[in-house]
Amino acid sequence: MAHPYVPRDLNLLDYVPNSLSQSTILAVYGLSSLFVVSITWLISGRFAKISKLDRWLMCWWAFTGLTHIILEGYFAFSPEFFKDKTGFYLAEVWKEYSKGDSRYAARDVGVVVVEGMTAVLEGPFCLLAVYAIAKGKSYGYILQFAISLGQLYGTAVYFITAYMEGDNFAASTYYYYAYYIVANSFWILIPTLISVRCWKKICSAVQLLGQKKTKVR
Amino acid sequence: MAHPYVPRDLNLLDYVPNSLSQSTILAVYGLSSLFVVSITWLISGRFAKISKLDRWLMCWWAFTGLTHIILEGYFAFSPEFFKDKTGFYLAEVWKEYSKGDSRYAARDVGVVVVEGMTAVLEGPFCLLAVYAIAKGKSYGYILQFAISLGQLYGTAVYFITAYMEGDNFAASTYYYYAYYIVANSFWILIPTLISVRCWKKICSAVQLLGQKKTKVR
Repeated sequence: MAHPYVPRDLNLLDYVPNSLSQSTILAVYGLSSLFVVSITWLISGRFAKISKLDRWLMCWWAFTGLTHIILEGYFAFSPEFFKDKTGFYLAEVWKEYSKGDSRYAARDVGVVVVEGMTAVLEGPFCLLAVYAIAKGKSYGYILQFAISLGQLYGTAVYFITAYMEGDNFAASTYYYYAYYIVANSFWILIPTLISVRCWKKICSAVQLLGQKKTKVR
Repeated sequence: MAHPYVPRDLNLLDYVPNSLSQSTILAVYGLSSLFVVSITWLISGRFAKISKLDRWLMCWWAFTGLTHIILEGYFAFSPEFFKDKTGFYLAEVWKEYSKGDSRYAARDVGVVVVEGMTAVLEGPFCLLAVYAIAKGKSYGYILQFAISLGQLYGTAVYFITAYMEGDNFAASTYYYYAYYIVANSFWILIPTLISVRCWKKICSAVQLLGQKKTKVR
């Protein structure tokens, strides 16, 4: 069976095409994400003293954490997803996404390692961040900062390796922009904003601690 | 010219062997590092209020920052170092280190990207950390945490990609342990210790800020 990916000479023995349509795959992801965000928003409202911004952050961490654990976790440990005949949703996702970046189907080692670390390390820590914000834990900012930095580092490795290998892994310009550029850009934009916010919060706190120590002297 | 690296079928056209001995290469690195550490230690002593631990940290950041910028920076932007005929020291370093990990000579994309990010981003930030500690800047802890996390992420990608590609890049067991394992282990151990320390310091500061806010209410 010929595959739809680029480079065309990529060898994918026993490839089975998508059985779900693009709109179905995106709708399931979109609706599941909306469900997770809504539930998190509703539950976060039951905690007093949490600002609206912190409630939105809880939604982000729940959404991105479950994306890391379920979607990326499945990819990292399923080297043969492109052979799936059952129409299993997670295999369908990665067959579809590979149209934007065939390194997924080709099992590029750099991509697998970045996705594996994201799924195994960052995923669970994202869920811990939801809890940390809800409970006002003192490690909330540094935890969010650490995960965001990990996401940014992973995304940088992801894009720079593709660039250095010729940046020719998308089936068309449409898939290149829709999947490879636009979808990933959220994991540059949002972690950057969160990192900057946490950096500032932490600096203020450390400064205050310094002033207090100076006063004691 | 046959090269000394493993895998043996690695193709390195126009390879030129080391002209400096292993002991010369290591002695130059060792003595330069000792010089950097000594200078940093002496200068740091002229600042009042800096603890001994912070002075050691300044030495670490100066040493690792210059290693990132000079050694790793040269590697990242010198794809043909293995052809060097002049005995240029930095080319000699990487010809020698490639005996422990031939992916350097082979220009493995993952290794080049991790080394490039380490050199360009982390290197200068390490020198900023020296300054931040000396001046007692409020961003000192979060900066040290960020760089250490970057070093740990990079080292993880470095080791896991090698493992997934068969872990067969060392010319002998000696080089595997001496260069690949022991030399790199410092960039796991020290960033881990620094991360834990900064995490604790930041949590205490944030906790104090929280208590102060609660009191105001």
